[in-house]
Amino acid sequence: APARPRRLLPLSLGLFQAALLLFFTLFITYDESPARMEDASSAAEQLYGTFPFFQDIQVMLAVGLGLLLTFLPRYGLSALTHNFLLLNFCTQWALVLQGLLHRLLRGQSHLQLRSLLAAEFAAVTVLISVGAVLGRTSPCQLLVVAACEVPAYLASEWVIATHLGVLDVGGTITIHVFSCYFGLGVSKALFGRARWVLHPKETPTPSSDLTSLLGTLILWVFWPSFVAVLCQPGDAQHRAILNTILAMSASAVTTVVASSLLEEGRLRPGHLQNGSLAGGVAIGAVADMDMPPVAALALGSLSAVVCVLGFRFLTPLLARKLMLQDHCGIHNLHGLPGVLGAVASAIVILVAPKDTSSSLFSQVSPAGVNASEVAVGQWGERGAGGQALCQAAGLAVAIGGSLLAGLLTGAMLRLPCLAQPPEQHCFEDSLNFSIQGQAESLELGGTLEEGALALKEQV
Amino acid sequence: APARPRRLLPLSLGLFQAALLLFFTLFITYDESPARMEDASSAAEQLYGTFPFFQDIQVMLAVGLGLLLTFLPRYGLSALTHNFLLLNFCTQWALVLQGLLHRLLRGQSHLQLRSLLAAEFAAVTVLISVGAVLGRTSPCQLLVVAACEVPAYLASEWVIATHLGVLDVGGTITIHVFSCYFGLGVSKALFGRARWVLHPKETPTPSSDLTSLLGTLILWVFWPSFVAVLCQPGDAQHRAILNTILAMSASAVTTVVASSLLEEGRLRPGHLQNGSLAGGVAIGAVADMDMPPVAALALGSLSAVVCVLGFRFLTPLLARKLMLQDHCGIHNLHGLPGVLGAVASAIVILVAPKDTSSSLFSQVSPAGVNASEVAVGQWGERGAGGQALCQAAGLAVAIGGSLLAGLLTGAMLRLPCLAQPPEQHCFEDSLNFSIQGQAESLELGGTLEEGALALKEQV
Amino acid sequence: APARPRRLLPLSLGLFQAALLLFFTLFITYDESPARMEDASSAAEQLYGTFPFFQDIQVMLAVGLGLLLTFLPRYGLSALTHNFLLLNFCTQWALVLQGLLHRLLRGQSHLQLRSLLAAEFAAVTVLISVGAVLGRTSPCQLLVVAACEVPAYLASEWVIATHLGVLDVGGTITIHVFSCYFGLGVSKALFGRARWVLHPKETPTPSSDLTSLLGTLILWVFWPSFVAVLCQPGDAQHRAILNTILAMSASAVTTVVASSLLEEGRLRPGHLQNGSLAGGVAIGAVADMDMPPVAALALGSLSAVVCVLGFRFLTPLLARKLMLQDHCGIHNLHGLPGVLGAVASAIVILVAPKDTSSSLFSQVSPAGVNASEVAVGQWGERGAGGQALCQAAGLAVAIGGSLLAGLLTGAMLRLPCLAQPPEQHCFEDSLNFSIQGQAESLELGGTLEEGALALKEQV
Repeated sequence: APARPRRLLPLSLGLFQAALLLFFTLFITYDESPARMEDASSAAEQLYGTFPFFQDIQVMLAVGLGLLLTFLPRYGLSALTHNFLLLNFCTQWALVLQGLLHRLLRGQSHLQLRSLLAAEFAAVTVLISVGAVLGRTSPCQLLVVAACEVPAYLASEWVIATHLGVLDVGGTITIHVFSCYFGLGVSKALFGRARWVLHPKETPTPSSDLTSLLGTLILWVFWPSFVAVLCQPGDAQHRAILNTILAMSASAVTTVVASSLLEEGRLRPGHLQNGSLAGGVAIGAVADMDMPPVAALALGSLSAVVCVLGFRFLTPLLARKLMLQDHCGIHNLHGLPGVLGAVASAIVILVAPKDTSSSLFSQVSPAGVNASEVAVGQWGERGAGGQALCQAAGLAVAIGGSLLAGLLTGAMLRLPCLAQPPEQHCFEDSLNFSIQGQAESLELGGTLEEGALALKEQV
Repeated sequence: APARPRRLLPLSLGLFQAALLLFFTLFITYDESPARMEDASSAAEQLYGTFPFFQDIQVMLAVGLGLLLTFLPRYGLSALTHNFLLLNFCTQWALVLQGLLHRLLRGQSHLQLRSLLAAEFAAVTVLISVGAVLGRTSPCQLLVVAACEVPAYLASEWVIATHLGVLDVGGTITIHVFSCYFGLGVSKALFGRARWVLHPKETPTPSSDLTSLLGTLILWVFWPSFVAVLCQPGDAQHRAILNTILAMSASAVTTVVASSLLEEGRLRPGHLQNGSLAGGVAIGAVADMDMPPVAALALGSLSAVVCVLGFRFLTPLLARKLMLQDHCGIHNLHGLPGVLGAVASAIVILVAPKDTSSSLFSQVSPAGVNASEVAVGQWGERGAGGQALCQAAGLAVAIGGSLLAGLLTGAMLRLPCLAQPPEQHCFEDSLNFSIQGQAESLELGGTLEEGALALKEQV
Repeated sequence: APARPRRLLPLSLGLFQAALLLFFTLFITYDESPARMEDASSAAEQLYGTFPFFQDIQVMLAVGLGLLLTFLPRYGLSALTHNFLLLNFCTQWALVLQGLLHRLLRGQSHLQLRSLLAAEFAAVTVLISVGAVLGRTSPCQLLVVAACEVPAYLASEWVIATHLGVLDVGGTITIHVFSCYFGLGVSKALFGRARWVLHPKETPTPSSDLTSLLGTLILWVFWPSFVAVLCQPGDAQHRAILNTILAMSASAVTTVVASSLLEEGRLRPGHLQNGSLAGGVAIGAVADMDMPPVAALALGSLSAVVCVLGFRFLTPLLARKLMLQDHCGIHNLHGLPGVLGAVASAIVILVAPKDTSSSLFSQVSPAGVNASEVAVGQWGERGAGGQALCQAAGLAVAIGGSLLAGLLTGAMLRLPCLAQPPEQHCFEDSLNFSIQGQAESLELGGTLEEGALALKEQV
């Protein structure tokens, strides 16, 4: 029955969207208390403090991350579109789950820019995770990943930020580490029994490397907003912005050093596209803490080295030994630097001077639950050693929980009804798009580049 | 005389620019009252409240809208350049007309960021309208459209916003509906007697679809700034931002549903490029009104469905029955969702709760004339039913006025001196650009893709 | 010994990065005075006033300027990457030099967003200068340029802004003129004895012209932030933003006029890519001064004319008579409009009304040293004529100092160990990047376009 998979995407997605509309009707409202009329100017100030950060993050997710994924030369449209679809789907889904949660816990839930921001953070985890299986999955499979990962993230984030009181203002542990190991779990459960050879269509062209690098640059520019948006306004936020910029600046330079050392004086585009961002991943957990600027630079450099080494040595090793596919190298960009950042946060907590430790408390939970008071109370009780242990515990929860949830989700993706694309049609936009005049252009061969690819496939 | 059309563009544009310089000398000044020295901090606050929105809108118009038009594979440079030229030309022209108007009405006119914003809104209408005739018109023809449409828009906006007191903070009626039917009028009057076959050069390639989709994503990200910039700061602006994001998020998801239903499980790039934005068009008239979040989601979904159905069924029908060309599908993106938004605004006004209706009055006219007091006064007198009727009247004025003005403008474009490009040179950058080494590359065939196009043209 | 140049880049860059880490450890700290705890809200306000401007500038430098340089069809990745590497390298280098300077002069140096901004301005000069030698230089040579130009800029900026009290809020003289003549000096000293023929790989393709034009549009949109970021908040900043927008709008329209006049009704992409920005270069020195809006428009128009004429007549002349290579045409975009802007600033100072001259003093030095009081004092003493002379003196210092420093730097670049690429490998990404599957794709010919280039090279 070839008709079924063709209608599976619109039907399932349409039903889900209808269900979301129903949930919104039941649970999500704007704040309608009359108090808002009085302090309009303070509301305006809050908005002006958050909205530019929010817009920066939107650019990162919709444009930057989408472009970063366009390095597959014949899969650019699909990569950009799937990223965009998942961003919207997950944000709505996270809003509903959050609204439900707040209703249950506090009896009310009001939609604000802040709650939208928290929902987007949930969406980020999905956008990162699916990088591990980019190009070999159908849109339906991606929707299943999204449907499973958002609640898993919200639960994990609640445990790590609210329950354990882990300090992680930029989401290093809660977002990057979690999403990486979730994605690897999905990939292992879905593809872990097959041994793939490198598909010729996977090889980037200079033109696809250029658009991907453009995505990197956009992410690089706006990353400070991502890290600092939830910081306490004022000094902590200022410091978080500066630390992030320093870390990413060091990452960019060190990536060039490391890549050209490994490649005999030349650069590999993939190293550059990912290594330049590694500092931003690692700095998240310590960005607002009291540490000298050189610490941010050093952490950025170190994470870039780790990322480039990961691409060169670890990814091929994992593919060979564990049969683990990681098409975008999310383990090198989000996993290794994330773990590094978590370790760094424990170290900074241990060596930070006593009298400035109060500035550590500028923490607001990415899920929108105000976790700062919890963290302040717990940290006051437990001291530096206890808090450092908590950071380690948070890391363990993030890795363990995400791997487990990812493996389960990946197992679900093996359901035949989800229409996983056959190997010979992977990495092809024509799988997902009905492109006008496509048949003719295939006959005529497209560009020689495409012709060369077609030729290689036949061989 | 082949020399005449070659010099027509620089001469006419140069004369116009010189005339604008003269008008600026006579009418446009900065505010030089000594009062400004005193409250510098309040001026700074106002600036910080407006400038980020303004920059977002500039990105939308110069980059996003320009890229959206690059779906024609051999006309990308021209599309981007004409969009940019018209943006600048129309903004200056609108500034002069506004300044003249304010001089006549109030005796003075001071240039501010707000007046620049209003001028850009006038420019937007032109940028949208020319989408209907993209690729088949000369720059001189586009300048005539710009010269005619800006005053027509300012008149129509004055009638709709100031005189009728229509509530339309995001320009759904005043900008989108107006520009759509103006463009269709131009297209009908200019091309309405010929029956075009689909030009092979009109078919997008995956690469041109990608840059066009990139334009969509940029527009999508910054659209909330476009809708909310003129809202009352504080609560109404916050709500307008959230409603716009929700509507556009629903649009994106629903576009995928609708397009894959119609295309047997695949997506059509053109649907995605336009449908994802339909929610932003429709939400404009109701964004700051008091309605539950689900209404924004539903409106976004509905407008995406309407847009995709329009592309699939209505555009071919109009081309066949009315011989109406609409190359970018502006009727599907701006016309249908715009009408839907206008209807939605009447419904929300009718069913909105009485005690919150005061929040309806956060209206400032896009043309910079402060229309809110007018609207408040009129709406207080006329009640919900009266205001809903006014919305309908505004819609009628926008459609009727723009169609009439567009038809007249289109008739002017038939003047032979305006150098309409011959059919075989349409959709070609070489018509507008002297590209280095072009002759040689044509001999050598360019890419195979271009060779294929050339081959099809010969057949 | 072919191994040496291969390891030169990672070793030299790695050593430099290590040295920077050391310098940061010794000299750069955050402000840790307890006072910051008290006025957190004022710190937040300052941050919200600067950060959006800062982000805009980051987009300009990393994305906009990088894309502008991608007009070389086979050198896009390298252009984007070198721009990005230099941006990061120079910012860190300038931070260290600044920190050292402030230590010596004031005994302390605290890292702030403002100091980062000043460091980025230093980086801009390098990014502009290397445009003159784009495509014919190795990364190591570019690092030497960066290492030499940053201190030269800081010294020149100190003389011009602090010592002479030149008014130049947007960096017309201190940044644009300086960097242009520095770059021309480097090019003359490095390539001045050879007479190059136009390399076929230098010819842009429509696709590379499109990405370059995209870079122009991004620069064009965010330029007002670059000019206005250091203005006094309030009225002067508002005026600087408006003047910049007006000047650049006039530039865009006038470029189309001038280019189509010279090219018989068509446009040359290179004119558009550069001419549209000329107004932004020229307006910098007068943006915050008290002048009617028409002056900004006229200055923008004039600078666009000068820029286009420069491309058409001056660049070929300089190449023929002085054997001066200027691959990106930085003399037309930064040199000529910069000189024009400096002259304009002297004229505005001479003709500005007496009673509003106080608004001239909204000047803060781009290097972060608060030069405004110096300027105010000096200008009060020296009067309009004296200040105008100072502007001329500043221009002379910028041109003379940068030419001298550039010639010396260019002479250093001739050292054989710096691995200048051989002529036949210029303008090729494969020189700098190890591209996967490159060998095969070369065998198969790549696109026909590339095949055509390869063919021309053999002939």
